[in-house]
Amino acid sequence: MELDSSFALFFAIDELRSALGEDAISTDDEDLLRHGYSEWSSINIDQLPVAVAYPQSTEQVSQIAKVCLEYKIPMIPYSGGSSLEANFSAPYGGMSIDFSHMDKILALHADDMDVVVQPSVSWMNLNEEIKDSGLFFPVDPGPSARIGGMVGTSCSGTNAVRYGTMKDWVINLTVVLADGSIIKTRRRPRKSAAGYNLTNLFIGSEGTLGIVTEITLKLTVIPEETSVAVVTFPTIRDAAAAASKVMRAGIPVAAMEIMDEVQMAVINKAGSTSKKWKEMPTMFFKFSGTKAGVRENVKMVKAIARTHRSGDFEFAVDAHEQRTLWSARKESLWSMLALRREGDEVWSTDVAVPLSRLPDIIEVSKTELDALGLFASVLGHIGDGNFHESIMYNSKDPKERAAVEKCVKDMVDRALEMEGTCTGEHGIGLGKKDSLLKELGVDTINVMKSIKGALDPHWLMNPGKIMDVPS
Amino acid sequence: MELDSSFALFFAIDELRSALGEDAISTDDEDLLRHGYSEWSSINIDQLPVAVAYPQSTEQVSQIAKVCLEYKIPMIPYSGGSSLEANFSAPYGGMSIDFSHMDKILALHADDMDVVVQPSVSWMNLNEEIKDSGLFFPVDPGPSARIGGMVGTSCSGTNAVRYGTMKDWVINLTVVLADGSIIKTRRRPRKSAAGYNLTNLFIGSEGTLGIVTEITLKLTVIPEETSVAVVTFPTIRDAAAAASKVMRAGIPVAAMEIMDEVQMAVINKAGSTSKKWKEMPTMFFKFSGTKAGVRENVKMVKAIARTHRSGDFEFAVDAHEQRTLWSARKESLWSMLALRREGDEVWSTDVAVPLSRLPDIIEVSKTELDALGLFASVLGHIGDGNFHESIMYNSKDPKERAAVEKCVKDMVDRALEMEGTCTGEHGIGLGKKDSLLKELGVDTINVMKSIKGALDPHWLMNPGKIMDVPS
Repeated sequence: MELDSSFALFFAIDELRSALGEDAISTDDEDLLRHGYSEWSSINIDQLPVAVAYPQSTEQVSQIAKVCLEYKIPMIPYSGGSSLEANFSAPYGGMSIDFSHMDKILALHADDMDVVVQPSVSWMNLNEEIKDSGLFFPVDPGPSARIGGMVGTSCSGTNAVRYGTMKDWVINLTVVLADGSIIKTRRRPRKSAAGYNLTNLFIGSEGTLGIVTEITLKLTVIPEETSVAVVTFPTIRDAAAAASKVMRAGIPVAAMEIMDEVQMAVINKAGSTSKKWKEMPTMFFKFSGTKAGVRENVKMVKAIARTHRSGDFEFAVDAHEQRTLWSARKESLWSMLALRREGDEVWSTDVAVPLSRLPDIIEVSKTELDALGLFASVLGHIGDGNFHESIMYNSKDPKERAAVEKCVKDMVDRALEMEGTCTGEHGIGLGKKDSLLKELGVDTINVMKSIKGALDPHWLMNPGKIMDVPS
Repeated sequence: MELDSSFALFFAIDELRSALGEDAISTDDEDLLRHGYSEWSSINIDQLPVAVAYPQSTEQVSQIAKVCLEYKIPMIPYSGGSSLEANFSAPYGGMSIDFSHMDKILALHADDMDVVVQPSVSWMNLNEEIKDSGLFFPVDPGPSARIGGMVGTSCSGTNAVRYGTMKDWVINLTVVLADGSIIKTRRRPRKSAAGYNLTNLFIGSEGTLGIVTEITLKLTVIPEETSVAVVTFPTIRDAAAAASKVMRAGIPVAAMEIMDEVQMAVINKAGSTSKKWKEMPTMFFKFSGTKAGVRENVKMVKAIARTHRSGDFEFAVDAHEQRTLWSARKESLWSMLALRREGDEVWSTDVAVPLSRLPDIIEVSKTELDALGLFASVLGHIGDGNFHESIMYNSKDPKERAAVEKCVKDMVDRALEMEGTCTGEHGIGLGKKDSLLKELGVDTINVMKSIKGALDPHWLMNPGKIMDVPS
């Protein structure tokens, strides 16, 4: 640092307020807390950002970056604030850059099947706004996620088994680099082999290489027919075996989700839906396509499920009930949070493994959770080999915290032994840096560090995330 | 260079022959020519590689890289040799690294739906070898392409409209870096959000960042039913309009290709198929899925085509005829090459544009080709906005060569004006560096150069491709 850091900050804020207006920078305590702490996160730290910037345009983000570079102030992008691994925390203080004023759909190109958006557009609002075009954006993480953060964490969701993940749906990005320069990673063709795939390098880089300010997304056609069904199985292993057969039969399910008996009980207790669920391992299916196609797929899936001791399929009778059934799945984390007593926290985390290993890792992990007496639920994107654990614990009890930490560490180690990954869709953030190193080894991490150092020589872009800042 | 380059080469070859065996390095003239010149390429240069290495393993590639680094010798990976933009040419001489001894399928994990292969595995052989598993690898570029080169150029093919491109089908890569160190970009989960997406950074980097020695590919299920149909349209615009409606209706065609009247005449003249084709704009459709699904899709596509003045659909009656019909499409470039007279060359190139602009760019480009009196055919991956021109010209006639160059340059400029890209699937190589700069601008190219410089500080990995070597 060239100046004492509090002087640097003072000058930087002053400069930015002069340039962008008084309201462009906040140092309000509540604002700082909201941008540095999250009750959903697996980890929280004492340090908060020291200011929050509210840019209105790519050019303003560029100005912010130039000033931050001048005074060597870390920059941390913020959109939905729903990430789970402290991805937007501020271990080195610095400036949180909140995109709440950059929440516009800039252009819908229906004939090209794409849309240009700003980072703070929510995927749910986007789909609501564009539905008359007959098109939709299929990546569906937690309901509060916004496109900017979805790019940052390379997220996915329940539709991934059919439609893939964030990296499959971005055509180009506009990015402000560490020195304030503005680049576009591609023009607007759906397909390109022109030079390095910078689009996919920035996706999942959690703001450590640059700040994404504009995103062109691919869209796809809203299916003619959608059907949602729920079915129970006596064990997770039966459910997983059925899911595996569905995949190997090539049946194009739109989504295939599993929740364990604990998660179903949580939904009942939290009263998130009007329905009373059987407290058994339960699979949620979404089918979509033409009417005839959906009918055919449902028939094939039912036949497979029956050979694995499924209960009866319960179908939603209308679009409203479809949303209700599916919301039980989408709001599972919130249901868990709703059950906390004073002092409780929920540690929610994910891993992914090769498809055939999912039942093994779920079974062993559940056994360990039970043995340690932890209250925890499991749910999985079973067609992707990706599953989540949500563990409730008393944050005031160091023994309980230690037990949870051990469970998570063991789950990650098991995933790695099975040639899996420490995170299928949440990202690394602060929480999983050691796991990433264990997963890929020091030489691969060094490649990431070289790229980071080349694009951000002062390590000002979301420092401390994904990898440690060199000492 | 620390040594006079011919001394350096002498020492390097000597060292490598001692370590890897006499046959591991060739300096045979014909071998050098085959590794530095291609009759398919849009561009050829006088310089050839000065040696060809034939490694047998990742460890041997690492040894080669260490020696090349020591003596500052460029390294150029080579697999199928069918790229079109001089992607494997040797403008700075150096060592061509030919993977012909690394052509094994290392592991098929049918339950995980993936396969681990070496770079010289051909995608067609791969599918033949694994077909009993009920799985296949869907990326289908030219028949002679091999997986290593397919990774390097980020290729695609006729199946892309349904299945996506190379970047969607790679789980992990083993890569030898410029200093000889060996990294793996990920373990083996189908989905991961763990750190930078190095897999997709190496895909399409044309060997300029590292040498790919092992690839884990996703596989998918062989559809129960496949149907191939051919139909003519009075104009390209009618065909394109029909294609656009098929896309917007969300009909999951497996492939949708267009060839113009010239290309159909070329196939007739070359006698590539036993059939006599109508010399009109022609669309090739592939449908796949369940029997009922295919029936339904065919019906919908026929109805759309009819409203755009299509002729009758001609369906292949059996698997053999399917292959025959489809081979007319797959071997279109070879048909063109077969018609060359003494001194003729074929310039084959591609661009991609946002979907709605494809008919415009095809029409204008054909008009220009006609006006200049060039013999040229057009074909397109019409569902991807990607099309190819193959232009025949007399290489001894500088006026003709200049005319072809102008046509290609104009086609690229038009694609860029339409927010498209200078290449949808062939890559940049030597041929399109200026176009890439025009497409993305100097700041984006500088990001690519920073990454290149960080991973390969001596610019030894396939130098001169994608971007110029800094002077």
